[in-house]
Amino acid sequence: MTVSRTVELEGHIIDSGTMQRCFEVIMDLGGDFDVEQFDVGRHKDEESYARLSVTAPDEGTLQSIVHELHQSGVNPIDPEDATLTPAPADRVVPQGFYSTTNHPTDVRVNGQWVEVEDIEMDCAIVVEDPDGDPTARTQVLNGIEAEDLVVTGEAGIRVRPPERPRDSSGPFGFMRGGVSAERPSASLIRKVADALREVKAAGGNVLVVAGPAVIHSGAGDALAELVREGYVDALSAGNGFATHDIERGLYGTSLGMNIETLEHPRKGHKHHIYTISEIVRAGGIENAVADGLVTEGVMYECVENDVDFVLAGSIRDDGPLPDTITDTVEAQNEIRRQAHDADMVVMLSTLLHSVAVGNCLPSTARVVCVDINPATVTQLLDRGSAQALGLVTDVGTFVPTLADELRE
Amino acid sequence: MTVSRTVELEGHIIDSGTMQRCFEVIMDLGGDFDVEQFDVGRHKDEESYARLSVTAPDEGTLQSIVHELHQSGVNPIDPEDATLTPAPADRVVPQGFYSTTNHPTDVRVNGQWVEVEDIEMDCAIVVEDPDGDPTARTQVLNGIEAEDLVVTGEAGIRVRPPERPRDSSGPFGFMRGGVSAERPSASLIRKVADALREVKAAGGNVLVVAGPAVIHSGAGDALAELVREGYVDALSAGNGFATHDIERGLYGTSLGMNIETLEHPRKGHKHHIYTISEIVRAGGIENAVADGLVTEGVMYECVENDVDFVLAGSIRDDGPLPDTITDTVEAQNEIRRQAHDADMVVMLSTLLHSVAVGNCLPSTARVVCVDINPATVTQLLDRGSAQALGLVTDVGTFVPTLADELRE
Amino acid sequence: MTVSRTVELEGHIIDSGTMQRCFEVIMDLGGDFDVEQFDVGRHKDEESYARLSVTAPDEGTLQSIVHELHQSGVNPIDPEDATLTPAPADRVVPQGFYSTTNHPTDVRVNGQWVEVEDIEMDCAIVVEDPDGDPTARTQVLNGIEAEDLVVTGEAGIRVRPPERPRDSSGPFGFMRGGVSAERPSASLIRKVADALREVKAAGGNVLVVAGPAVIHSGAGDALAELVREGYVDALSAGNGFATHDIERGLYGTSLGMNIETLEHPRKGHKHHIYTISEIVRAGGIENAVADGLVTEGVMYECVENDVDFVLAGSIRDDGPLPDTITDTVEAQNEIRRQAHDADMVVMLSTLLHSVAVGNCLPSTARVVCVDINPATVTQLLDRGSAQALGLVTDVGTFVPTLADELRE
Amino acid sequence: MTVSRTVELEGHIIDSGTMQRCFEVIMDLGGDFDVEQFDVGRHKDEESYARLSVTAPDEGTLQSIVHELHQSGVNPIDPEDATLTPAPADRVVPQGFYSTTNHPTDVRVNGQWVEVEDIEMDCAIVVEDPDGDPTARTQVLNGIEAEDLVVTGEAGIRVRPPERPRDSSGPFGFMRGGVSAERPSASLIRKVADALREVKAAGGNVLVVAGPAVIHSGAGDALAELVREGYVDALSAGNGFATHDIERGLYGTSLGMNIETLEHPRKGHKHHIYTISEIVRAGGIENAVADGLVTEGVMYECVENDVDFVLAGSIRDDGPLPDTITDTVEAQNEIRRQAHDADMVVMLSTLLHSVAVGNCLPSTARVVCVDINPATVTQLLDRGSAQALGLVTDVGTFVPTLADELRE
Repeated sequence: MTVSRTVELEGHIIDSGTMQRCFEVIMDLGGDFDVEQFDVGRHKDEESYARLSVTAPDEGTLQSIVHELHQSGVNPIDPEDATLTPAPADRVVPQGFYSTTNHPTDVRVNGQWVEVEDIEMDCAIVVEDPDGDPTARTQVLNGIEAEDLVVTGEAGIRVRPPERPRDSSGPFGFMRGGVSAERPSASLIRKVADALREVKAAGGNVLVVAGPAVIHSGAGDALAELVREGYVDALSAGNGFATHDIERGLYGTSLGMNIETLEHPRKGHKHHIYTISEIVRAGGIENAVADGLVTEGVMYECVENDVDFVLAGSIRDDGPLPDTITDTVEAQNEIRRQAHDADMVVMLSTLLHSVAVGNCLPSTARVVCVDINPATVTQLLDRGSAQALGLVTDVGTFVPTLADELRE
Repeated sequence: MTVSRTVELEGHIIDSGTMQRCFEVIMDLGGDFDVEQFDVGRHKDEESYARLSVTAPDEGTLQSIVHELHQSGVNPIDPEDATLTPAPADRVVPQGFYSTTNHPTDVRVNGQWVEVEDIEMDCAIVVEDPDGDPTARTQVLNGIEAEDLVVTGEAGIRVRPPERPRDSSGPFGFMRGGVSAERPSASLIRKVADALREVKAAGGNVLVVAGPAVIHSGAGDALAELVREGYVDALSAGNGFATHDIERGLYGTSLGMNIETLEHPRKGHKHHIYTISEIVRAGGIENAVADGLVTEGVMYECVENDVDFVLAGSIRDDGPLPDTITDTVEAQNEIRRQAHDADMVVMLSTLLHSVAVGNCLPSTARVVCVDINPATVTQLLDRGSAQALGLVTDVGTFVPTLADELRE
Repeated sequence: MTVSRTVELEGHIIDSGTMQRCFEVIMDLGGDFDVEQFDVGRHKDEESYARLSVTAPDEGTLQSIVHELHQSGVNPIDPEDATLTPAPADRVVPQGFYSTTNHPTDVRVNGQWVEVEDIEMDCAIVVEDPDGDPTARTQVLNGIEAEDLVVTGEAGIRVRPPERPRDSSGPFGFMRGGVSAERPSASLIRKVADALREVKAAGGNVLVVAGPAVIHSGAGDALAELVREGYVDALSAGNGFATHDIERGLYGTSLGMNIETLEHPRKGHKHHIYTISEIVRAGGIENAVADGLVTEGVMYECVENDVDFVLAGSIRDDGPLPDTITDTVEAQNEIRRQAHDADMVVMLSTLLHSVAVGNCLPSTARVVCVDINPATVTQLLDRGSAQALGLVTDVGTFVPTLADELRE
Repeated sequence: MTVSRTVELEGHIIDSGTMQRCFEVIMDLGGDFDVEQFDVGRHKDEESYARLSVTAPDEGTLQSIVHELHQSGVNPIDPEDATLTPAPADRVVPQGFYSTTNHPTDVRVNGQWVEVEDIEMDCAIVVEDPDGDPTARTQVLNGIEAEDLVVTGEAGIRVRPPERPRDSSGPFGFMRGGVSAERPSASLIRKVADALREVKAAGGNVLVVAGPAVIHSGAGDALAELVREGYVDALSAGNGFATHDIERGLYGTSLGMNIETLEHPRKGHKHHIYTISEIVRAGGIENAVADGLVTEGVMYECVENDVDFVLAGSIRDDGPLPDTITDTVEAQNEIRRQAHDADMVVMLSTLLHSVAVGNCLPSTARVVCVDINPATVTQLLDRGSAQALGLVTDVGTFVPTLADELRE
């Protein structure tokens, strides 16, 4: 005795891979299917439509299949309203709550589809005013409050994974090929420059996520220039990045090395610690800039150009600086705010901060990720973003070359 | 016109590399030297002694040289008392404060040498009761309180870097060769097992630092066994590790994959998020064990065997679990406590937590560091620890093979 | 004015990704399409069929599109005979010759489809006796002889990329997920053991490709055991592998280190060079075994168990051993012979030899690739093999664990 | 009952690490020592001298110790003549032959010290005309001819490891710090440019070792410029490098991708194979340049500027090109010739060719090694070269940035 459910797919379901994924999921999880209807888009601008009856040997298997299909944008045909269950206590979600993907998502409330605001993965959906003018928003687990109406189960939810661009032209057309181990670095950097220019020309918001390697690889001046020239709207970094950057201005060193002359490499970190204590004494980075203590560098340019910066704390921090947000939940909330505003994100040599930002991005965000370690780039791109580009290159030459391109 | 200072070295200064480092530092930083006395240890058990007059073209250069020499255990000959300066405010160190190394250190107070307690790198030294029965302790910058007597300058401070073991026998004798890319894995694992047994036989304390890869590489059962069998006294990990471990017990999956049958690999992280919400509902891991919700795994064994665990928060955490310490400064303090108690530290596949622990360890700690990425192992070992071993291997086979060895 | 061509696809064209690839290629290369017919397989065992008219702005673009489609198994509808052109001289192919893929391929000669023997990528196809009983074989460029009838152009050629297995059960069902960075090592090794047993039970041929790291990571005994127990039919390695293996038997060291006791690590390679000179003196490995000089190890077991071994030379070889084939073209031919016989290939920690073997394998071969460097594993798997598994793990624990599994 | 031997060291034995290494070797291998004399260099320009009596429990241990000390430049005090033994047959060395290090070496023949010509590691030493005007040369094992007088044992041999530069100034002063993972890329590239200019100004010979990644990372034009501008005297590469380079000129692609526009990425390698067949047809690269077929690129510039190039074959080659030396022993001899002429070697993204060149270099050679994989850089630098610099960076940005620097 088998059970079945009818699902449907529409859009560019062949070249987006949705149709393939659908067949794979059903077969991998032990189900079978009957294609009830298939209208293929005959031209490249025509969408396709498919309706399948999915069968499985038991209800558990069927549910697993439907769950997986759902995550890929294949939705049950029978539109029911989403189930709403009040949260039993602060920070406690009802059992069986719906855990979000990072794709644009709608929930059905009182027969109408409502788009979920600020979608990001691994969160709950909270619906407000379901009987009046319903809205739906993404809510992280620790932000749930008692009595919040949380979506449970998978009925009445529609996921819309982004489709790949229909051609490879345009500034973001090149952002499709994944990781670049064997691709020409200079040409790719030129494309990134074009994309940055385009986003800025359209009034878009650029978020740069930067690790300490940006500074000690010698790319600090070039990044400071990008900030000064208006290519950066927000900076997401950590205590180490800011300290290295300010140390360079105060002492001319990073990790104890003069990065111009390469002289006096030292094991000791005295300048690093001294930098922190000077900023503590000044009462923070803004004060240190105002006092004339800090007069150059990325943080200086952020202060001078009103670029929003978030320094998130980590357990490997020295100090930390007064500007560093030591509570990770609070820091995540600040990062979330930056991520939601960003039209384009450039991740420079930091796995920790890039993952934190990436966790808050919808799959529609444009992402450029630069790291010398291919495993880092692969991990960061592996989130179903439709417009993401990974460059396996040296941030110490990448940022200066990018700044050169933008100067022309 | 040149300036000069007399310094001295003693101990096994040749085979420990101190003498070589001393000559290098002086020449690299632009100084010169005159060896006034050199008594070489004639046999392998005899110590050596050297006294050098260091000259430099100016006082700044001389100070840089003396600073560097000092960090390597080469100390000025003229014993003065350390300079003590009261901290001007909470969290604010006096200017010119002495920033610690991770080597055993003494300060001279009222003519007597006092050992600095709980030494770790990049901290200040606070002296109490200087005129009575003086003590000295390491203090992180953010723990400084107004009026604390902080050591400033470099006078009256003596650093004693650990010497390498005099031969390669004994359980820790093998821990000298650095990173193991081309060394036989099985033989090294046998040596690690011997070292663990030896430390436990001597009543020592073993701290395991573990990343999530331990669980999803399938090594969870083996690590749980090590905890159960008493080889682990403390566990330092993060929210991700604990969640993956508990997810395995609750759902049989890690990152959505059944790690026994390898079936149903899924992109979605529903089980991961569900695990967190179940533990939140239970009120924490201990409650979840008490309630019979969590019945196996590493965290279960920690609770059942009273193994001290610290879960430090990070900005990439989902949830987090109620047990996760979200404030990074507070988490560092807990990690510091674990590190100071540890006689042997085993770092398993986590750069973030291993660096955090490593920051708090003295250079005398015994450290085994296991990671599949050679760059991670190199970075972790590069802290001047005298007894450290890096294994570039797969934690998914390392921990089970280690457990096998310990079972025999 | 546009030009067009009609192509067709059949088989499991949706879940194999062929349909998606077809749409992508046309759009990426600037063409358009009209789906003239699409019969979707309604159940999972039913094949699909599609016929498309492809249009492009000019003949050059159309040819690029048709060329790309062809490589993915999308073939022009109008069956013509393949064009055969005599080679102008030894080692010189006619211009416009057809360069092979590694997929099963047929050529049309006198109206009938002939399968190309021993298909491998980047070769020419030579047809014999076209007017009588035609045969077609793959021929490397340097093996072409004057007057060979070489296929030119792309007419009359049909490529059949392998389809993915229809479910994930069976010994090779697990070999689909690509690289394993985050998968449980022990479970995967168990699956590899099952696959090896299955292949041997079915009378299949197992080729092991091994690098020197197998020996100096301490896995030599375990690999020797696999040879002795009959799990290995052929060994493809280099001068370094064989020398390290024999050095272990003769001197108990590998790269100068005793891999049991870990004693006496030495920079010098005296034993390595001495080993080579002893084998030169004996006149080769077989003689050295016959003389009782070599009495253990992988090479010993190969000789004793009549396992075919090929030692291919490289420019980094010391010596080399008399058994090492120093001419790379001759060595490739020997490797080619091994590859064509293999039903399953296990690649252990060698990029050079694995690429050489991989170049000769059809896309239908089963491949397991083990390396500690994820970039190596990715590169080796990136060849369109339908049944390939990459494990990012330590060969020093992988081979012993595999031998353990097979012993049970 | 113990045995003993007296050894001596002289030179800058402290800061070169020789003294430390000497003590370590004796203790690690189970011996003891008595420092009979120690005259320390009192100033930085004064050399030191030490004479030690080494004791060991048995003759075997003593020999191991003396062997190890010898390799580090610590020589027995009693000067005997070297033992010369005729080779029994072609390619067969006498038993107990002396295996060379890569350090400058002398042998004592008839009471006089003779420098060994063209020293490289893991070879034999052949003495000619011992009773007349003796000379000594390095000989690879496969080049030994019957009756060659080969040095056996370790008596009468003196090794002189290079000392580190006495200060960090000068063009090569910066080449001491090993691998650069955390060092500023742009500043380091500037230093490499200075070193190149200096070597050329002094009439020195620069050997570039280049892998295919140079071309498909887009650095081909920049390297061609360096050749054209006279910065490169010799090129050591492989079949893949030359083919990719020529493919770019012929088709504008590398691995099928147009590296300017990034358009039309293709899996197929048709252009690659077509390039090879065109060069075969032309009869080689020089002919292809003369015929006007090849008109740009690195190989073109080599031909036009009479830069000596060696293309060494490997088992992963397609084709190969007629210029590729397929016999690895013959190729090694050509590489050896290039290596012996080189004053500075720049290794760009190729492990195989760099190891082959590195094997032939004396420890006095200046080496710059560039690779994006830190493990590759570490492996290449780990050969005791006194002036070697490793840069972990992207060759695709490194070469253009270097060319920029040299243009200024």
